[in-house]
Amino acid sequence: MLLTETAEDIRTMKIRGAGRIARAAAEALREYAGTIEVSDLAAFRTEMQEAAEQLIATRPTAVSLPNAVHAVMSGLSGADSLPEARSALRERADTFIRSSLHAVEEIAAIGARHISDGDVLMTHCNSEAALACILEADRQGKEIEVYATEVRPRNQGLVTIRTLNDAGIRTNYILDSAVRYFMNEVDLVIVGADAITVNGAVVNKIGTAQIALAAHEARTNLIVAAETYKFAPRTILGELIEIEERSGSEVLPDTLARALSHVRVRNPAFDVTPAEYVDLIVTEKGAIPPGLAYSIIKEYLGWSIGEFHKGLVMNSENHE
Amino acid sequence: MLLTETAEDIRTMKIRGAGRIARAAAEALREYAGTIEVSDLAAFRTEMQEAAEQLIATRPTAVSLPNAVHAVMSGLSGADSLPEARSALRERADTFIRSSLHAVEEIAAIGARHISDGDVLMTHCNSEAALACILEADRQGKEIEVYATEVRPRNQGLVTIRTLNDAGIRTNYILDSAVRYFMNEVDLVIVGADAITVNGAVVNKIGTAQIALAAHEARTNLIVAAETYKFAPRTILGELIEIEERSGSEVLPDTLARALSHVRVRNPAFDVTPAEYVDLIVTEKGAIPPGLAYSIIKEYLGWSIGEFHKGLVMNSENHE
Amino acid sequence: MLLTETAEDIRTMKIRGAGRIARAAAEALREYAGTIEVSDLAAFRTEMQEAAEQLIATRPTAVSLPNAVHAVMSGLSGADSLPEARSALRERADTFIRSSLHAVEEIAAIGARHISDGDVLMTHCNSEAALACILEADRQGKEIEVYATEVRPRNQGLVTIRTLNDAGIRTNYILDSAVRYFMNEVDLVIVGADAITVNGAVVNKIGTAQIALAAHEARTNLIVAAETYKFAPRTILGELIEIEERSGSEVLPDTLARALSHVRVRNPAFDVTPAEYVDLIVTEKGAIPPGLAYSIIKEYLGWSIGEFHKGLVMNSENHE
Amino acid sequence: MLLTETAEDIRTMKIRGAGRIARAAAEALREYAGTIEVSDLAAFRTEMQEAAEQLIATRPTAVSLPNAVHAVMSGLSGADSLPEARSALRERADTFIRSSLHAVEEIAAIGARHISDGDVLMTHCNSEAALACILEADRQGKEIEVYATEVRPRNQGLVTIRTLNDAGIRTNYILDSAVRYFMNEVDLVIVGADAITVNGAVVNKIGTAQIALAAHEARTNLIVAAETYKFAPRTILGELIEIEERSGSEVLPDTLARALSHVRVRNPAFDVTPAEYVDLIVTEKGAIPPGLAYSIIKEYLGWSIGEFHKGLVMNSENHE
Amino acid sequence: MLLTETAEDIRTMKIRGAGRIARAAAEALREYAGTIEVSDLAAFRTEMQEAAEQLIATRPTAVSLPNAVHAVMSGLSGADSLPEARSALRERADTFIRSSLHAVEEIAAIGARHISDGDVLMTHCNSEAALACILEADRQGKEIEVYATEVRPRNQGLVTIRTLNDAGIRTNYILDSAVRYFMNEVDLVIVGADAITVNGAVVNKIGTAQIALAAHEARTNLIVAAETYKFAPRTILGELIEIEERSGSEVLPDTLARALSHVRVRNPAFDVTPAEYVDLIVTEKGAIPPGLAYSIIKEYLGWSIGEFHKGLVMNSENHE
Amino acid sequence: MLLTETAEDIRTMKIRGAGRIARAAAEALREYAGTIEVSDLAAFRTEMQEAAEQLIATRPTAVSLPNAVHAVMSGLSGADSLPEARSALRERADTFIRSSLHAVEEIAAIGARHISDGDVLMTHCNSEAALACILEADRQGKEIEVYATEVRPRNQGLVTIRTLNDAGIRTNYILDSAVRYFMNEVDLVIVGADAITVNGAVVNKIGTAQIALAAHEARTNLIVAAETYKFAPRTILGELIEIEERSGSEVLPDTLARALSHVRVRNPAFDVTPAEYVDLIVTEKGAIPPGLAYSIIKEYLGWSIGEFHKGLVMNSENHE
Repeated sequence: MLLTETAEDIRTMKIRGAGRIARAAAEALREYAGTIEVSDLAAFRTEMQEAAEQLIATRPTAVSLPNAVHAVMSGLSGADSLPEARSALRERADTFIRSSLHAVEEIAAIGARHISDGDVLMTHCNSEAALACILEADRQGKEIEVYATEVRPRNQGLVTIRTLNDAGIRTNYILDSAVRYFMNEVDLVIVGADAITVNGAVVNKIGTAQIALAAHEARTNLIVAAETYKFAPRTILGELIEIEERSGSEVLPDTLARALSHVRVRNPAFDVTPAEYVDLIVTEKGAIPPGLAYSIIKEYLGWSIGEFHKGLVMNSENHE
Repeated sequence: MLLTETAEDIRTMKIRGAGRIARAAAEALREYAGTIEVSDLAAFRTEMQEAAEQLIATRPTAVSLPNAVHAVMSGLSGADSLPEARSALRERADTFIRSSLHAVEEIAAIGARHISDGDVLMTHCNSEAALACILEADRQGKEIEVYATEVRPRNQGLVTIRTLNDAGIRTNYILDSAVRYFMNEVDLVIVGADAITVNGAVVNKIGTAQIALAAHEARTNLIVAAETYKFAPRTILGELIEIEERSGSEVLPDTLARALSHVRVRNPAFDVTPAEYVDLIVTEKGAIPPGLAYSIIKEYLGWSIGEFHKGLVMNSENHE
Repeated sequence: MLLTETAEDIRTMKIRGAGRIARAAAEALREYAGTIEVSDLAAFRTEMQEAAEQLIATRPTAVSLPNAVHAVMSGLSGADSLPEARSALRERADTFIRSSLHAVEEIAAIGARHISDGDVLMTHCNSEAALACILEADRQGKEIEVYATEVRPRNQGLVTIRTLNDAGIRTNYILDSAVRYFMNEVDLVIVGADAITVNGAVVNKIGTAQIALAAHEARTNLIVAAETYKFAPRTILGELIEIEERSGSEVLPDTLARALSHVRVRNPAFDVTPAEYVDLIVTEKGAIPPGLAYSIIKEYLGWSIGEFHKGLVMNSENHE
Repeated sequence: MLLTETAEDIRTMKIRGAGRIARAAAEALREYAGTIEVSDLAAFRTEMQEAAEQLIATRPTAVSLPNAVHAVMSGLSGADSLPEARSALRERADTFIRSSLHAVEEIAAIGARHISDGDVLMTHCNSEAALACILEADRQGKEIEVYATEVRPRNQGLVTIRTLNDAGIRTNYILDSAVRYFMNEVDLVIVGADAITVNGAVVNKIGTAQIALAAHEARTNLIVAAETYKFAPRTILGELIEIEERSGSEVLPDTLARALSHVRVRNPAFDVTPAEYVDLIVTEKGAIPPGLAYSIIKEYLGWSIGEFHKGLVMNSENHE
Repeated sequence: MLLTETAEDIRTMKIRGAGRIARAAAEALREYAGTIEVSDLAAFRTEMQEAAEQLIATRPTAVSLPNAVHAVMSGLSGADSLPEARSALRERADTFIRSSLHAVEEIAAIGARHISDGDVLMTHCNSEAALACILEADRQGKEIEVYATEVRPRNQGLVTIRTLNDAGIRTNYILDSAVRYFMNEVDLVIVGADAITVNGAVVNKIGTAQIALAAHEARTNLIVAAETYKFAPRTILGELIEIEERSGSEVLPDTLARALSHVRVRNPAFDVTPAEYVDLIVTEKGAIPPGLAYSIIKEYLGWSIGEFHKGLVMNSENHE
Repeated sequence: MLLTETAEDIRTMKIRGAGRIARAAAEALREYAGTIEVSDLAAFRTEMQEAAEQLIATRPTAVSLPNAVHAVMSGLSGADSLPEARSALRERADTFIRSSLHAVEEIAAIGARHISDGDVLMTHCNSEAALACILEADRQGKEIEVYATEVRPRNQGLVTIRTLNDAGIRTNYILDSAVRYFMNEVDLVIVGADAITVNGAVVNKIGTAQIALAAHEARTNLIVAAETYKFAPRTILGELIEIEERSGSEVLPDTLARALSHVRVRNPAFDVTPAEYVDLIVTEKGAIPPGLAYSIIKEYLGWSIGEFHKGLVMNSENHE
């Protein structure tokens, strides 16, 4: 069954990437809603609720996953009959998937408007959404130049410069430590996001906060390109985004590390950029200042604080 | 002859490192002063002057080199006879060499006083002077912990953590991009310098300015440990410290680079930390705020602005 | 009658404390709605409106009072008959009181998530909500340490350290003037609020703004713990929160003051912390950045700007 | 016909000023809705849509124009019959015009509350809304003093000081370059706006950003007085406010300019003040922090992001 | 003998206050130099050196003490005979004492020039030098107003307001926690110093750093009034000024403290204001920016770094 | 006699401009020293002292005047006979005049080194020294572009753009209010100075401080080009530089002003840029950070604090 399979694939990271995880979960719920055999609406609700919880449990720290599940499950709240409920869920799943697939191109359209002819840009890591804005500006005939960082330890910068090179965009490849050195040449910094908290802080690849600080120091604007499902509703409840610390061997080969008993490698994969260093977050629904993250969570993700408090995160039929 | 050899060895970078270059030049002048056959003081002056210029020309951007040459040559200014002149130069050369050799340990003694028991430190690159302060604090029994960066592209951080590990100091090895992430854990940043300008700006390994900015943001003090011969007198005349840009192949293998025709690697080896982000510069002559760089240049390096203006940088007999 | 009694008790400060005043007012309106004898809905509305105004007039500067009255009176807007209206008011009053009583514990649950194991906290004055967050974090087994200020002139810090001591929490008692001295030891500042304006400025015990400034300087986060009824809707209209200036004799004994004819004691009881120094406001409805104060006022307190403009602050039946 | 005439008058700048343009457009649509002869609702919609587009096309960069058109056209969305639609449009137009006419006095009422007795104010250019706040505070008997700038190159400051002089308000007339010199004497800066973007940035007469920066440096509050129709909905989509650059002859007489072939006059009419330098935006609907610009756009201007995305900016019948 | 007595009186704090300690030490050395019976200059040097060390040992953390001793002992360096040495020391002692006695009035003369007619000042603690500037400005007929803090826990503010009241100066007495609240009313902050480090940091009564921060935030200038003997030469060597932590019973009565086993009172008597928050240091030798502290140490206190390094702090005959 | 004439010409502003005033005074003293008939050195001293005082009294606020007089008069201090004194004064006067005449070209040589090929510069007012740096950089073949302000009310910007145009330098002419608008295009700001205080604050044409603030905000460097005689020694004594307030009729025609009885024109001619916004001061003696203003005053102007204190400003023979 797709539900079980999908849950398993997410857990084992066979399905990865915020967008793909979200769409796979929506698809799984869609199929499940259409196939389970139940006698009445109440039973259907119970079953679907369990399915939803099963999916969410596969990756407790993924931000896009509960957003996708919630978007689909919200179809239950207005349904008065079993057929109506089945059809509502299907429709919500379709809408979510379609919207997710188009999100990047809508972000690109909005983000590209913030890039002017002659601009020098800087980007970090390899964000699909951030790159889409740059590529769209280039496609519109704006002459641009980009500074792209190396992104230790996994060197995602290489992927980024290949993409930019293929588009024929003039690109400078620099060390992560050279960001401030070149900042005064830069007109606009544009990065992606792994998650955005209720107070507009941006969780992204390690090094982003440092770039944001240098941009702020130099009065250079910084834009974050992020799909709405990157916003993290549970941060309203004070839940902190956990910063994953990856294996030290990414930074220091184990053979070397073993010889250095007093040395510990610290390898956080992300950092947190405070909202005050972010000028605008470009989502597929429009560009907002970081202080309005809560509005995205409420209006586009459809979460209300009440839901959390009732302890019924999934069960949205009661929310007013 | 030692003079020619030394000049050649400096030019070919067989002799490298600010301290070693400086001492080699002093030694060469010392030997030359003792061996050249001249009939009178005037001829001696001319010969020595030529020798001095020859040495300085080997590495026009080295900061320690003219400082060393100047220190030795200043022995000429008060001499009234040939023997007196020979002996004055010898003495100055000996003093300079001895002082240079002891500089790091005196810096360590002063710098270690700024490290308190329980402090968490951060350092960047592999500065002998900065590490000496840390090791001295450890030797005094202060319990300390250090964050050391990787230092792309040549990974000097590895040398640093080996030294710290050998001393049994608890060390964290982090990416250059993770500096801000850990800054709130840090009590004191301590780095070295390649050169210090008249307005207290510090030229050091690329990434230093970014660390200084993050330290400043977090109200964490930053100390620069630097021998006095790192101060750059000619910056008084507006001469800019040239930032060396090294081969892109240090960052991106040529095979990869060749395939990316729109990509240029930018690989500056140093950056400039503004004086406002530096709390103290620890020299072997004492600790001063960066705003007093000029005093060091005048009092300890013995340069006066007049010398430059007379266009007689080397010829110090006329300066009061 | 409870209404008259309550009004009198609020006026004479027999009932004091933002929470107690709010609940007493709700209770009084509840009872009044159940007991007044009127013939039709119109008359009921008139009577209740007068009662509401009477209560609000007792303490024109209290922020929680109009919020409570408004919450109860909003029950009138949808009612089509007298019984319906009576019952709606009763229900709103009950909801408000219950929610108010649980507010602190919900704030504690959310706030405690922002406190990490090993954190050093700072607090000021004696805020029930702020302390609840700290106590909850301690209860969850997180090892924490607290800096608590003296809080001149009435020394509420004494009450705070007794509470912390009783919970066995390691506490440092410091002067109000020593806040910056210790700030670099602190991971998180957590304070309460007397009122919060529409632009997220926080009115709290004198000294708070100074602590917030020192926290901001040191990149230390500051959280404000406050029930939603602390938000001040009328600030939308530009109404300023009046800062009470208390008797000089709290600071300087009258006997001393009398001898100093050129000296005037200035004793403001509160100050205003600008939104930019506040990272998060934790309410019982969730944690929001200060810039979203307006959302709380609109969504949870139920005020709309239209109401003010119609001059019918109490009469909410017309608002769309 | 009024529609054609109005369109022409806006295009030729016979009608100018954000408020007058907005009201003229509303009036033209109102009249058009009452006079066009169509057989059914669908035809009416088509005609009105064309009329709306015609009006908007006259001044593509005016911010108030699409806001006015949208306010009137939104009457179409709920109408089920032709008469209903005609009447809805009429009513919306009337409401918009009335509200626009009263906006300044409501802004004055709110803004004046932020001015205290004894305050020294600063203003720039000649904003009706900003001056109204000052005049209202004066009318209430508050003793105030004003610094007003010259406002090169068209010297609107002259109009401002005449108005203030007529009201008997103590006024200081200063150069645009003297703003920082006097800032420490000032308690509050109050300016108008030409447009406000979704992230709270304020587009206003050139020089405003510089004043805001100096106010920020000196911890002096800055208030922007602006009617809600100054908010620019399309900035949500990343559309940038185009800064008009006016003729150089305003700054340098052509006779002089012609002789200076290497000199170009740059004469931008407006600049952009970032939200972080704005403390409060006073609108006729209340005072909000700049971070809530999006709320004004949504709640009072009635735009939803969906509308833009459907490419049906004018056609609001589908928006929920 | 005076030497022994003085040493004892300093140790037991019978003699206290930076100025009085310094003058007493100079006086003791003066008398000792005139009375000891020695046969030759070498013996005299040895004896005086021992006396000097004895005095300094009485209060190792006092800043004025080694400055006074050094000023007197420097008379030894040029002396060629015993009588000459005796007389040189006497003369140096006289000069030091006279200069110290006049220092405050010279500071007042210079400092008062920075106070303008109509200025509102703020001061903290009870600095003789800072108050002298204020009183001098008042004496010159400038109309001034002062904010003076309470200065917990020993309430030195009371002494300050008495002095100001006696001079008929309009004074506001405020809590230490109310400093930021009133800062926008203040034109100039003027405080004293207990010690000043080589990098211009000012050690003064706890609370000073917080006031300086609030002044800096509000673009209010801050002046430090300090005799030159407050500068701390040994900070050149990295020696840190030790911040005395006084008994907790000053803050919390022991009876209360005993009952609170988890509470520790932290009572630092001083804090450190960074140079960047200090606009000018007014000494009896002139007004200098904090960055020039080193010049004072060198030019007026007569210390050279070489002295420290030879380990011969007292013995200045060898310094060039 | 030249002395009397010169004094008169300076008083009546027939001689104006800091440089010309300074050289005229030196010339007058030179001639006077060569012509007065006195019998002995003591008499010569007395006469010269009176002449010096007479000159200084002509323009008590001119900064260059006492510097010139002091430079010449310092020749008296070492003279042992009348002829020697006469000749010393002559020589000092010649040196001062020659050095003053060459100052601008030496400043240009040093300043131009800070201008890089491709730089965009901004300047304000019409400073000979600042323009000389720009012209020299252009002469060296560096491609540069300049933003020059209008400089109300006397429009000195016109003179500036003519000079730049004549040199064929690409120039943008902008309003004083447009400085921040263009700042992000600018690589370096370069301005002159009317006076520089002991703490490095720069007194210059009104508007400079505002430009410096905008440059600081944007991390754009600012250089001040100033001859050493612009440094104001008496600020060491706390003497404030008086800011001249010029006639209001420069800003507002009297006919207009008369009709506006509540309006006062405030027209300060200069403002004060704090040292923290100045990166470097380029003098003919070298480039120094503003914190070293005191060193210039001492080393190149030859003032010592002692002189002031002895009340013998002119009489330098006693100063050590």
